[in-house]
Amino acid sequence: MSWVDGAVRPLDESALAAARERQQHLTKPAGSLGRLEQLAIRLAGMQGQSCPRLEQVSIAVFAADHGVAAEGVSAYPQVVTAEMVRNFARGGAAISVAARVLGADLRVWNLGTVAALEPLPGVESRVIAPQSGNLLHEAAMTATQLQQALDVGREAVLCLPTDLFIGGEMGIGNTTAATALAAALLEQPVADLVGPGTGLDTAGTRHKCQVIERALVRHGTGREPLDLLASLGGFEVAALAGAYLTCAQQGVAALVDGFICTVAALLACRINASVADWLLFSHHSAEPGYRLIRQALPSAPLLDLGLRLGEGSGAATTVPLLRMACSLHAEMATFAEAAVSEKGA
Amino acid sequence: MSWVDGAVRPLDESALAAARERQQHLTKPAGSLGRLEQLAIRLAGMQGQSCPRLEQVSIAVFAADHGVAAEGVSAYPQVVTAEMVRNFARGGAAISVAARVLGADLRVWNLGTVAALEPLPGVESRVIAPQSGNLLHEAAMTATQLQQALDVGREAVLCLPTDLFIGGEMGIGNTTAATALAAALLEQPVADLVGPGTGLDTAGTRHKCQVIERALVRHGTGREPLDLLASLGGFEVAALAGAYLTCAQQGVAALVDGFICTVAALLACRINASVADWLLFSHHSAEPGYRLIRQALPSAPLLDLGLRLGEGSGAATTVPLLRMACSLHAEMATFAEAAVSEKGA
Repeated sequence: MSWVDGAVRPLDESALAAARERQQHLTKPAGSLGRLEQLAIRLAGMQGQSCPRLEQVSIAVFAADHGVAAEGVSAYPQVVTAEMVRNFARGGAAISVAARVLGADLRVWNLGTVAALEPLPGVESRVIAPQSGNLLHEAAMTATQLQQALDVGREAVLCLPTDLFIGGEMGIGNTTAATALAAALLEQPVADLVGPGTGLDTAGTRHKCQVIERALVRHGTGREPLDLLASLGGFEVAALAGAYLTCAQQGVAALVDGFICTVAALLACRINASVADWLLFSHHSAEPGYRLIRQALPSAPLLDLGLRLGEGSGAATTVPLLRMACSLHAEMATFAEAAVSEKGA
Repeated sequence: MSWVDGAVRPLDESALAAARERQQHLTKPAGSLGRLEQLAIRLAGMQGQSCPRLEQVSIAVFAADHGVAAEGVSAYPQVVTAEMVRNFARGGAAISVAARVLGADLRVWNLGTVAALEPLPGVESRVIAPQSGNLLHEAAMTATQLQQALDVGREAVLCLPTDLFIGGEMGIGNTTAATALAAALLEQPVADLVGPGTGLDTAGTRHKCQVIERALVRHGTGREPLDLLASLGGFEVAALAGAYLTCAQQGVAALVDGFICTVAALLACRINASVADWLLFSHHSAEPGYRLIRQALPSAPLLDLGLRLGEGSGAATTVPLLRMACSLHAEMATFAEAAVSEKGA
């Protein structure tokens, strides 16, 4: 039995209750801080303390190339995956800037790129293959490769203590893999889920749709989540699923980024529904298929700002909201402390 | 002629163009950072520099009591206005905590409370009267009082240099005043705009609706914005309108908070439509009437988290998003700098 089938840790019910109780006494009309109140309460349950904290944030960006890129499903050339890993390492990518702003630990996990990468600072080399198999013609990965990718996700969560885990991804072609996986998991028409990704035109998006439809005919849809992941996923999508499973098993709060990460999170929830307890969803991706995926999520995303970059950038943008929720929860005075009259007094 | 009629400063077109151009070269698919890109560009136009910054944030909370509170339109007793001013000063209110988190300057402007206030640190005393007139029976304020309140708003903007101005409010009964003002400005039925405020039940909300409807019959709706403000507003609502007008005249970016602040902002835009250039709207208030008000806004609010506290707390919660937009805009590498291939390359 793999660690993948391990038990998910339950939330701390007494911390949840204590946080809920505390919210009722803070100097504001009950419920007037809306989702900020709910966030503080959920984080309390995850961290097992009535006043949660989010000092240590770790961001793991998983990078991998996709065989299906050969079908012309992306607006960008495949070499961009490796080039962006260098950009992450040099600090010039969106997620690099965001990590600096947050004081977060940023680590990139290289699962295999077509253009080979030299050793880079902050980049962990865990190359499985130069790219996944082309899902139009073959399985994206073997069972061994799938386990390797899941293990890298696990390693990324376990490698340092953290108050909040963020996964990100980079891989030219990965909206194709994620859309295929979403269509298979949700059993929804590809045409309702497919989108332009990094910027395909209408004809390009139509072609991408046909590629995915043909792939689903080849691989079938009504199968076990891990089988679908091996057939249709990419190494970075599998690593993300492994990371979310690990977060839930180890009791680490995870903040889920956009389209690709959310598909990986849904997949992890299909493996074990209790994983959902440990997931917060950062933002509504601008990729059109997110709308359908959202309906299957255990909770609503927090932001809706038209983001569609990936890398973990939307999740990073959401961190200050979570921190604000924690600060308000911990530092506001109670009615008694502040000698403020209560409702109807 | 009062300063209220002064000209609004135009945005800096060359800074807008330079910021737009810069966004096209950053290492991400064009447009993939959605509204974060638009925010950085707008702030560039406001600040007259291609890379805007948001280091100095100033928060002015205007506090005042309302004669209409005598009609039983709030879930809380009127003494809470003064009690909350003390809570602001002691650092226990939501906006106090948020200001600390942001490193923002927080100043409270006391325009008049029924329970008199002793001198308090961080609280500027500009008492106009213990409370506004009861709008059900009389004008909320005289022309002189209106000008005094507008002047306090102006003073709050001018008293220290800032990269971003946030107005907040505290005043038991002020959703009644703001709803009356919104109904008169938008010429919409009160029933479509009224809500529970700090927490009225259904019967309480119905009563509040009737009070506002009767007030509007008394005062009339199709009148000049400043006349409506004198009849229906509160001192803090007038101060907010004065602050937004001043921001637009002086070229200071303003981040507008929830229901009350947004009504004051709409009013300022009715006095001079160009004020809208200088306003960013932070969040969708949970007060039901916000939905109608939103349709009249020049731009959409950024967050939708069910907030309905006021004090400037929703705007403060939004500041880290604006700062992230500025950091990404200024610090991300361009395609050329990072040697990353462009689309279709």
